[in-house]
Amino acid sequence: MSDGSGDGGLDGSAPSLRHLRTDLTPVVEAVEAADADAFVAVGDRFDDDLRYLTRFAGPDRAYALVVVPASDGDDATGRAVCCAPALFAEQAEREFVAGAHVRSGGEKHAGSDRDREFHDGVAREVRTENVGDHAGERAAATVAALLGESDSHADPVLLVPPSIPHDAAVYLERDGNELASTDAVTTARARKADAELDRLRRVQRATAAGMARAETVLAASGVGEDGAGRPIVRWEGAPLTTERLRREVNAALAARGVRDAGDTVIGVGPSAADLHFVGDDPIRPGETVLLDVSPRGPDGYRGDMTRTFVVDGDGGWARRAYVAVEAAREAALAEVEPGVPAKTVHGEAAAELAAYGFDPNAGEGETGFTHGAGHGVGVSLHEPPSLTGAGELRPGHVVTVEPGVYDPDVGGVRLEDLVVVTDDGYELLAEYPFGIVPEERG
Amino acid sequence: MSDGSGDGGLDGSAPSLRHLRTDLTPVVEAVEAADADAFVAVGDRFDDDLRYLTRFAGPDRAYALVVVPASDGDDATGRAVCCAPALFAEQAEREFVAGAHVRSGGEKHAGSDRDREFHDGVAREVRTENVGDHAGERAAATVAALLGESDSHADPVLLVPPSIPHDAAVYLERDGNELASTDAVTTARARKADAELDRLRRVQRATAAGMARAETVLAASGVGEDGAGRPIVRWEGAPLTTERLRREVNAALAARGVRDAGDTVIGVGPSAADLHFVGDDPIRPGETVLLDVSPRGPDGYRGDMTRTFVVDGDGGWARRAYVAVEAAREAALAEVEPGVPAKTVHGEAAAELAAYGFDPNAGEGETGFTHGAGHGVGVSLHEPPSLTGAGELRPGHVVTVEPGVYDPDVGGVRLEDLVVVTDDGYELLAEYPFGIVPEERG
Repeated sequence: MSDGSGDGGLDGSAPSLRHLRTDLTPVVEAVEAADADAFVAVGDRFDDDLRYLTRFAGPDRAYALVVVPASDGDDATGRAVCCAPALFAEQAEREFVAGAHVRSGGEKHAGSDRDREFHDGVAREVRTENVGDHAGERAAATVAALLGESDSHADPVLLVPPSIPHDAAVYLERDGNELASTDAVTTARARKADAELDRLRRVQRATAAGMARAETVLAASGVGEDGAGRPIVRWEGAPLTTERLRREVNAALAARGVRDAGDTVIGVGPSAADLHFVGDDPIRPGETVLLDVSPRGPDGYRGDMTRTFVVDGDGGWARRAYVAVEAAREAALAEVEPGVPAKTVHGEAAAELAAYGFDPNAGEGETGFTHGAGHGVGVSLHEPPSLTGAGELRPGHVVTVEPGVYDPDVGGVRLEDLVVVTDDGYELLAEYPFGIVPEERG
Repeated sequence: MSDGSGDGGLDGSAPSLRHLRTDLTPVVEAVEAADADAFVAVGDRFDDDLRYLTRFAGPDRAYALVVVPASDGDDATGRAVCCAPALFAEQAEREFVAGAHVRSGGEKHAGSDRDREFHDGVAREVRTENVGDHAGERAAATVAALLGESDSHADPVLLVPPSIPHDAAVYLERDGNELASTDAVTTARARKADAELDRLRRVQRATAAGMARAETVLAASGVGEDGAGRPIVRWEGAPLTTERLRREVNAALAARGVRDAGDTVIGVGPSAADLHFVGDDPIRPGETVLLDVSPRGPDGYRGDMTRTFVVDGDGGWARRAYVAVEAAREAALAEVEPGVPAKTVHGEAAAELAAYGFDPNAGEGETGFTHGAGHGVGVSLHEPPSLTGAGELRPGHVVTVEPGVYDPDVGGVRLEDLVVVTDDGYELLAEYPFGIVPEERG
């Protein structure tokens, strides 16, 4: 449905051709700072920490990553072993070790150890487990092998993410290791490297293309009547529902090489006030149509954008809300720069909405501003920093700015963009126009 | 790109309008059989056990489910509490408790306790946590509250899935509970209820529509030359690559209301022998094009289908492999009925491939049949039963049947369908034609 090379989407190069590597230095340093012996993570393809650390899209059952700092006198900074199921050996080699496209059939990766070291000096390798072995068992064996090869470690201490699977933790403990949790990965993920920003920009451009499809459909729609004589929005000969519109958005995303990830939220009228509504309502003239599009790109990075439209509106609540939310958006963005407490951005949006007469501290299901002004976005759709949390903005933070106001009896208006904090302010990761009246977008 | 009502896809009704409820009786019975006090699961939206148990699509951070059997003299069978973040309260009520579309804006669910009981007699409710509370902490508090309300439980024993997050397990243990792992959920998930089969059939029909899109593109393609004078497959004025073809498939899936879930595997020539290849290779005449399509439907259920084509082929290895794999498929299917050891199905496929001269026990990267003949499919793409595992087939098991042969230097051929074991044999969940030469489909 597209030649895959359209503007506003991902470019035509293959996901696996574009190098994306993670600097494991913060993990190695966390192990050293804690006077621990290794870092261990266990999870499946849905574990975003592992995806970030390994760049391995992974199997849908548990696999493990073990990182050990180098012993004294070693050339490398450390070693990282991905314990993968045998069926995924080739993929793990390609994504974790080679970090590049390996054409199979004779051109297998056959580099020296030197080739396998990245700029962080951590030597990567893949070890395949026998089917049936638990990933925690494999991780424990790998820890023992790696530590045994260097110094003696009587009672090894392992840093692990807090939510490591319990059975894996038990395997590691039974093997004589002591576990301590670390937030080093979460911290490292919050500030994006240039290669990550590149992925986020691409996905956000595809997000904008999905939004453009929705706006174009709304702009091309007309008004008719349903069986009960109630006015209804129609498109291409049939009533337009949120599900029909969602399918249009998701097909446009797929044609650009990203996927909706089950998160294309479209609310209309009262359901626009429900933050996570995925249903099938008829779209009616005069009601707010709220579209929150947040696809996942081929490298796992997310986009996130919200716009709100009204077909055949007559002003009133929706227009008043739109003006307030646009003002809140600008007030919030004006605060975004390094060193500013993240909460300040939320506070400015809230103050602006209050100035327009909306309750800035409304609870779930109440009328007003019912949520935070933004959250970090990366491999996860929601990750640090939060604009209602502690801490200051720093260069490389990528956050949504998304003020919104809702009236559960009427509808909701939210405007959301994705920005990266730069050295002296912010950059929008993709631009998309504003306006409550839908227009055709090429 | 579709009016959403096409044949072969999902129907137009909204996901949330179609009731899908899980019988929690096996969980209650497992607690009673183990002389335990409660069942606790903690996970996020990517935890398929929780998705199955609650039907709540969930947040991307941890939430919890607590199930306690009724105390003696109670009318109900038990109680189930979903501890959800406050922002998801409405969604959890809708999906976990009401199990039906609740139009917001005044029509909040206000039924009696009776209304909240399903046919399993387990009364459902949602409790919202304060933001910042750990789901494990909330689960521990809920366990204490529920058990405190009934008998005295000096040292409560909680059944948990083995891979419950470690931090949640620690919260539960610190609160004085003893944990024991259970496979009750895994066992319950293996046999599908009628409502689940309905979802699986719908998704598999959408899968077939995605496959039809790919086959149609291949059928409409021609042969040209690349810059180096090598023959190449062209479509709509440009070289056809695996990534272009993948986008076509994924857009067709999206238009039918399902999503590719990042799992549309398309290999060509040597990369067709790589089981998890997601790259961007030019498609060349005479090479095997292997398409493995496994989308996720709105209720979380998966489809899974593989076909293999050759554009402008000249027979040889690919055709010989295709004939062998078709025969293996038929031999395997002929074994599918209740009471048959699952391994028998794999064994028959392997024996047939051996009869055609292919190594039935080839290892990863070798020439021959390199994987198992099938696996269970449900909310997870891979779940019990495995056709290489222990146990017998039982009615309601849904498994792939997918023999394949590969030569890492040449290509791969796999044919995969999804079947449900019936009382006296099997039923294909969707039909899709065979043939190595692509034809235009619908």
